[in-house]
Amino acid sequence: MIKVGIVGISGYTGGTLLELLLDHPQVHLSYVSANNTVGPVEKIWPQLAGRCKLYCGKFDLAKAARLCDILFLAVPHTLSIQLTPKIIKKGIKVIDLSGDYRLKSTALYKKWYGTKHTDAANLKKSVYGLPELYRAKVKTAKLVSNPGCYPTAAVLGTAPLMGLRSKSVESIIIDAKSGVSGAGKKLSSGLMYCEVNEDFKAYKVLHHQHTPEIDQTLSLIAGKKVGVTFVPHLLPVNRGILETIYIRLKKKMSLSEVRTLYKKFYKTEPFVRVLPKGEQPRLKNVNYTNFCDLGIAVSSDGQTVVVTSAIDNLVKGAAGQAVQNMNIMCDIAEGTGLK
Amino acid sequence: MIKVGIVGISGYTGGTLLELLLDHPQVHLSYVSANNTVGPVEKIWPQLAGRCKLYCGKFDLAKAARLCDILFLAVPHTLSIQLTPKIIKKGIKVIDLSGDYRLKSTALYKKWYGTKHTDAANLKKSVYGLPELYRAKVKTAKLVSNPGCYPTAAVLGTAPLMGLRSKSVESIIIDAKSGVSGAGKKLSSGLMYCEVNEDFKAYKVLHHQHTPEIDQTLSLIAGKKVGVTFVPHLLPVNRGILETIYIRLKKKMSLSEVRTLYKKFYKTEPFVRVLPKGEQPRLKNVNYTNFCDLGIAVSSDGQTVVVTSAIDNLVKGAAGQAVQNMNIMCDIAEGTGLK
Amino acid sequence: MIKVGIVGISGYTGGTLLELLLDHPQVHLSYVSANNTVGPVEKIWPQLAGRCKLYCGKFDLAKAARLCDILFLAVPHTLSIQLTPKIIKKGIKVIDLSGDYRLKSTALYKKWYGTKHTDAANLKKSVYGLPELYRAKVKTAKLVSNPGCYPTAAVLGTAPLMGLRSKSVESIIIDAKSGVSGAGKKLSSGLMYCEVNEDFKAYKVLHHQHTPEIDQTLSLIAGKKVGVTFVPHLLPVNRGILETIYIRLKKKMSLSEVRTLYKKFYKTEPFVRVLPKGEQPRLKNVNYTNFCDLGIAVSSDGQTVVVTSAIDNLVKGAAGQAVQNMNIMCDIAEGTGLK
Amino acid sequence: MIKVGIVGISGYTGGTLLELLLDHPQVHLSYVSANNTVGPVEKIWPQLAGRCKLYCGKFDLAKAARLCDILFLAVPHTLSIQLTPKIIKKGIKVIDLSGDYRLKSTALYKKWYGTKHTDAANLKKSVYGLPELYRAKVKTAKLVSNPGCYPTAAVLGTAPLMGLRSKSVESIIIDAKSGVSGAGKKLSSGLMYCEVNEDFKAYKVLHHQHTPEIDQTLSLIAGKKVGVTFVPHLLPVNRGILETIYIRLKKKMSLSEVRTLYKKFYKTEPFVRVLPKGEQPRLKNVNYTNFCDLGIAVSSDGQTVVVTSAIDNLVKGAAGQAVQNMNIMCDIAEGTGLK
Repeated sequence: MIKVGIVGISGYTGGTLLELLLDHPQVHLSYVSANNTVGPVEKIWPQLAGRCKLYCGKFDLAKAARLCDILFLAVPHTLSIQLTPKIIKKGIKVIDLSGDYRLKSTALYKKWYGTKHTDAANLKKSVYGLPELYRAKVKTAKLVSNPGCYPTAAVLGTAPLMGLRSKSVESIIIDAKSGVSGAGKKLSSGLMYCEVNEDFKAYKVLHHQHTPEIDQTLSLIAGKKVGVTFVPHLLPVNRGILETIYIRLKKKMSLSEVRTLYKKFYKTEPFVRVLPKGEQPRLKNVNYTNFCDLGIAVSSDGQTVVVTSAIDNLVKGAAGQAVQNMNIMCDIAEGTGLK
Repeated sequence: MIKVGIVGISGYTGGTLLELLLDHPQVHLSYVSANNTVGPVEKIWPQLAGRCKLYCGKFDLAKAARLCDILFLAVPHTLSIQLTPKIIKKGIKVIDLSGDYRLKSTALYKKWYGTKHTDAANLKKSVYGLPELYRAKVKTAKLVSNPGCYPTAAVLGTAPLMGLRSKSVESIIIDAKSGVSGAGKKLSSGLMYCEVNEDFKAYKVLHHQHTPEIDQTLSLIAGKKVGVTFVPHLLPVNRGILETIYIRLKKKMSLSEVRTLYKKFYKTEPFVRVLPKGEQPRLKNVNYTNFCDLGIAVSSDGQTVVVTSAIDNLVKGAAGQAVQNMNIMCDIAEGTGLK
Repeated sequence: MIKVGIVGISGYTGGTLLELLLDHPQVHLSYVSANNTVGPVEKIWPQLAGRCKLYCGKFDLAKAARLCDILFLAVPHTLSIQLTPKIIKKGIKVIDLSGDYRLKSTALYKKWYGTKHTDAANLKKSVYGLPELYRAKVKTAKLVSNPGCYPTAAVLGTAPLMGLRSKSVESIIIDAKSGVSGAGKKLSSGLMYCEVNEDFKAYKVLHHQHTPEIDQTLSLIAGKKVGVTFVPHLLPVNRGILETIYIRLKKKMSLSEVRTLYKKFYKTEPFVRVLPKGEQPRLKNVNYTNFCDLGIAVSSDGQTVVVTSAIDNLVKGAAGQAVQNMNIMCDIAEGTGLK
Repeated sequence: MIKVGIVGISGYTGGTLLELLLDHPQVHLSYVSANNTVGPVEKIWPQLAGRCKLYCGKFDLAKAARLCDILFLAVPHTLSIQLTPKIIKKGIKVIDLSGDYRLKSTALYKKWYGTKHTDAANLKKSVYGLPELYRAKVKTAKLVSNPGCYPTAAVLGTAPLMGLRSKSVESIIIDAKSGVSGAGKKLSSGLMYCEVNEDFKAYKVLHHQHTPEIDQTLSLIAGKKVGVTFVPHLLPVNRGILETIYIRLKKKMSLSEVRTLYKKFYKTEPFVRVLPKGEQPRLKNVNYTNFCDLGIAVSSDGQTVVVTSAIDNLVKGAAGQAVQNMNIMCDIAEGTGLK
C-alpha cells in the first residue's frame, strides 16, 4: 500500500482526490490538510460520512512527511512554490495540481500569474504530467506538475496532428467551454447560482492563463513555436469541458487520413477514445471518468479539421490525471482506482 | 403620470421593479438609488442598456422627495425602519418590500428578525399590501407593507377555507419550494452555482421568519389564533415558488365543495387563477407574470385538502404585487403594467 | 465470482446496474439483453466504450439460464410477471426491479397498475428487498422484489417511529420530490428539456402507484392498517429523491427522543445515516451512492415530527439496492461494489 | 389597429408570437390556428389563461383572409410553400418564420432541406427580413422571410466587416451555441431532460442547414462569394444563442478600428448594442428582449477579430424580429410591442 496525503481538501479538486484515493485499492490515504477549513473530513464533505474518519488540520510538514510517500498539492498557485521545496527536501514525492510548475519560463509565469516564481530549481526538474506524452518521464519524477484542465483537452485534441504533421498546420483556434467547478469553490458574485443558471458567456477572451501552457506544450510537440487562439466560455453545468478546435491546414487532408492518424497515435492509450466516424463527444460520456473523448470532422474542402475534445475537468482535467500519474510513478497498473 | 422612485435597485427585487416601472404606461420613473452600487443604471443592469438613462447614486432624501410621489423601498430589513419615517414625514407615500412593517407585533419582529423595531408609529398605520384581502385599505394607505413571497402564496392558497370555513380547519402544513432568487443577491457560499445546481434540500426547517407573517394573516382572516407548520426548500431554478399545502379538516368536504368555495372567493380577482379540475400549477405558467395559480385536490376520505399554490417570487411575490398596490393607491386600472 | 445478467439495459435503471456490476469485484457480468435496443453495449451506452465488450440481444431464456446464477430484471411492469416464472423454473434467482412483485394483494395490483396479476404463485414467495427490514428473508430468497424509489425513502424515513412507536402516530403526510430519471427514459412531451427545466410541479396528486406500496410496508411494520397522504413532485435535476415527511403524533416527543429512536434503529445499518442534530440531507450527499440520509426536526409543541429522507433514486432507490440485495443473497459483504 | 393572425401557435415560436402580439398596443390578434393541437388557446398555453379568449382550430384560409391583414406563419418548412401562395393570392401579407423562403436558390433549398421548392414565383419576390440590412425592402414587401436564429446572430456579428472591409477578411469561423428551444417542441429522445441537462455537445458539425443562409447573406453584403465554417452546439438552457465568431484578417486592424467600424454601422439601430470595450455579451442580457448584443476583441497580432454575438433565439431570432418586420411593413414605430 502506498501512503499518500492531500494538501488542500476543501476545494473541488481536493474533494475529488479524496473520493478517488479513498476508493483506490492500493493506496492508504494517511494524511489530509487544508488551510481555512479544519475539522473532521466528514464535516467538510458530508457525503463521505461513514467512509472517512480522518481529521483535517492545517498543513504540518513533519507529520505529512512521516505519514506519506507522496503528497498531492491541491492548493492555489503561489502556495505550491512555497510548500514544494520543503516537501521535496524531506524526500517526499509531489504531484502538484496548481499552475506553479507548468510554465517552464519564469518570465511567462510572472506575466500570466502576476507574481514572481521563487522555485526555479524544482521547476527545472519538474515533469509535465500528461501521461499520453510524457509517461516515461513521469515514471521517475520526484515532482509532477499536473496539467491544467483546458490544456489537457486542448493538447490531447491536437497532439496527433502537431506531433506527426506539424508542417501541415497553419493555425489553431480553440473555442473552449467549461463547467462551473473549473472556476473553483471561492466565493464570487459572478458564480452565484442565479448569475450562471440559464446564462452563457465568454470570459477572459484571448487572455486566459492556460493559453501559454497550451502554446508551450504544442511547441514542444511540434518542434517549433506554436501560438493558439484561445477563448474560454462558462457553461451552466457543474462539470465537464468540451473544446471545439479548428485546425487550419496548409495542405488538404481527408477525414480518413486524419482519423487514421489519431487512432494510431492513441492506439495503446487507456484513457483516450477516438470516437467512431460521425460521432461527437458529450460531457455525459466522460463525466465522472478519466476518459478524454475525441470527435473528428473535416471540411468539404479538406482544409479545416474540426476536433471536439471532451473531459471531466475534475477527473482527467485534475484529480483523475493526478491519480493516473501516481499509478505510473508507483508502478501500479495505470487504470487502478480509475474504473 | 405618477412620479416614482426605487430605493435599492441592485438586488433582484429592485431589478424587477425597474423592469416593470420602465414599461408602465402611466408611470414616470424619476429617481433610483442604491447604497453599495452606484453608477449608470445601464452599468448595473446591462440588459437595460438603451432603455434607461438614469444614474444611480446613494439615497438622497431631499432629491427623492422632490422628484417622486411614491417611493418603493427594496432594501434589506432594518434599513426600512430607518428610512420610512423620514420619507413619510416629507409627504411621500411608501411601498416597502422589506420585512420591516409586516409583523404587527414589535415583540414578534424582535424574535424573528433579531433586532428591535424602532418605528412603532408607522407600523401601526401601515397596511398589509395583499390586494385580494385588503384592497380597500391599500387604496388610502400612506405606507404599504408588501407581503413576503412565501406568505403571498400561502395566504392566497388558504384564504377561502380560512375565511369562510375556519371552523372546519384542524391544521395546516405548508411544504414550500422556492427558486434561488428568493434568497437575494448577497454573496453566500451555499448559493454558489455548484452548490445549488443538481441539488435540493430543506432549510430553516420550522423556523423561517415568514412563518409568523403567515400565522398573523391567517389568524386575522379566521378570527382566531392559527399556527401553521412551515418547511421551505431551495429549488434549483432562478425564480418561482410552489407551495403544497395540506389542510386537515375536522369535517369532510368534497372536491367540488372546495372548488366552488375557491372559485367564488376569487371570482373577481384579476391575478388569482383557480385551475380547472385535475390540473396542477407549474412555475412555467406563473413566472414573469403577476398571477397566482391554485390547484385543488381532496383525499378520498374527504378529510385532507391539498392546495398547490404557485407564484413568481419576484413578481406576485414582490415587485409585481408592489406595482399592483401602487396602481390601487393611484386609482390606475389594477393590471396596468402587469400584462 | 457470481455470474449475473441484466434483462433490460436500455433504461436508466439498467444502465446504472451495468455501471455497478461492471465495477463489482466479485461479479462476472455474463449476460445482458434489451427488447428494443440491440447492439454492442458500448453503442447503447457510449460512456462504457472500452469498459464493456458485451453484445446486447433480445432476451434469450436458454442462454441467460446457461450463463447466469442471478438475473436482474430492469423491465417495465407486466413484463416481469411474464418472464419471472420461466426464469425461476430454470433455477435462476431473480431480483426484479419492476413493480410487479411489490404489492402482495393482486387486487391492489389490478387497481394501481391497471392490469391483472398472472403470477400469484411467485408473488406469494417473493421477498420485499428492503435490507434494513428484511435482511434475513432476502438471504434465502429465490425472488427478490426490489422496492420502489419513493417507498424506499418513505419507509426508511418512518420505520423507526412506525416500528417502535406506532401507537403514538396519528397521521403521515409525505411530500416527495424526485429527479427526472425517476420517470424513466421513455419519450414523453412532458419530460422534454424545455418543459422541465426552470419548472416545478406536483403530479399524480394523491394517486401515485407507490402509495399502496408505502401503506403495505408501514402497515406490516406497525402491525395495523396505515394509510399515508402522498404527493410527488418533479424536480428539475437528473437524479435524487428528497421526501419531507410530516408525522403527526398523538402524544408529544422531544427532538432527542426521536433522534435516539432513529439512531438506535439504524445503529448497525451500513447505508442509512441519521444526520447530526440540526443538519438536513441534500441530494448532493447521496447521489451516486447507496446511502439514505435522514434529517429530523420536531415542532415546538412536540406534536409534529418532520423527517427529511434523501436517496439517489437510481442507486438506493433502484440499482444500488438491487446490488445490496444480491450481496446479501450471495453471502458477499453487503457493501461490496457500492463504495 | 392592424388585424393579424398566427398560423401554427403550438410550437415555441408560435407561443412567443402569441405573447408578443397579445401585448402589442397597435395590433388586434384576430385569428390563430394549428394543425395538430386544436382547442381554446388558454388550454394550449395555460400561462395565457385570463389573457386570451381565442379558439385555435385547423387552418381555414377563407376565415384567416377575412379576419387578417397580415399572417405570421410559424409552421415547419415545406408547409409554408404550400400555404403561402394561397394566402398571398388573397391579398394578405405574409411573414414566414420557416426556412422556406430564405435560400434564393431552389437548388440549395433542395440540397439542405431535402425537398423540392414548389413556389419559385413568390421566392423571387420575397424579402429577407433582417431590418438592419433590408429595412427599405421590408417596408414594401408582401412576403417577408424571417431569418433563421443562427444566421441573425451570425450576420449581425459580421456585417460591418463584411460590408465595409470585405477585402480584409480571409476566413470566418462561427462557433455557435444555442438553447434547447431552438430545436423546437417536437418529441425527440435526444432532447429529453435527462439527455440535455448537465450535458453539452456539438451537433450537425459542418452541415447545419443554416450554413448556406449565412453564406448567401454574407456574400450579398460582401459582393463576392463567402463561405463560413459553422459548428453549432446544444446548450443546456431554455433559450438564447451565443456565437463566437473568429474572423481572420488579411491585414491587421486594431481593436479601436474594429470597434469604430461596428459602432458606426449600428449607430441608429434600435436593437443592436455594441458593448463597451472589454465587455462580453451574456444570454441573460438579451433573453426576453429583441436585442442583439455584440462584444469585440482583437488578437495581439491584430490578425484575428473575435466577435461574440448574443440574441434570444425566440425573440430577435424569431418572433421578435417578425414583429419588428411587421412594425416596419405597417409604418408603426419599429420598437412598438418589443419593449
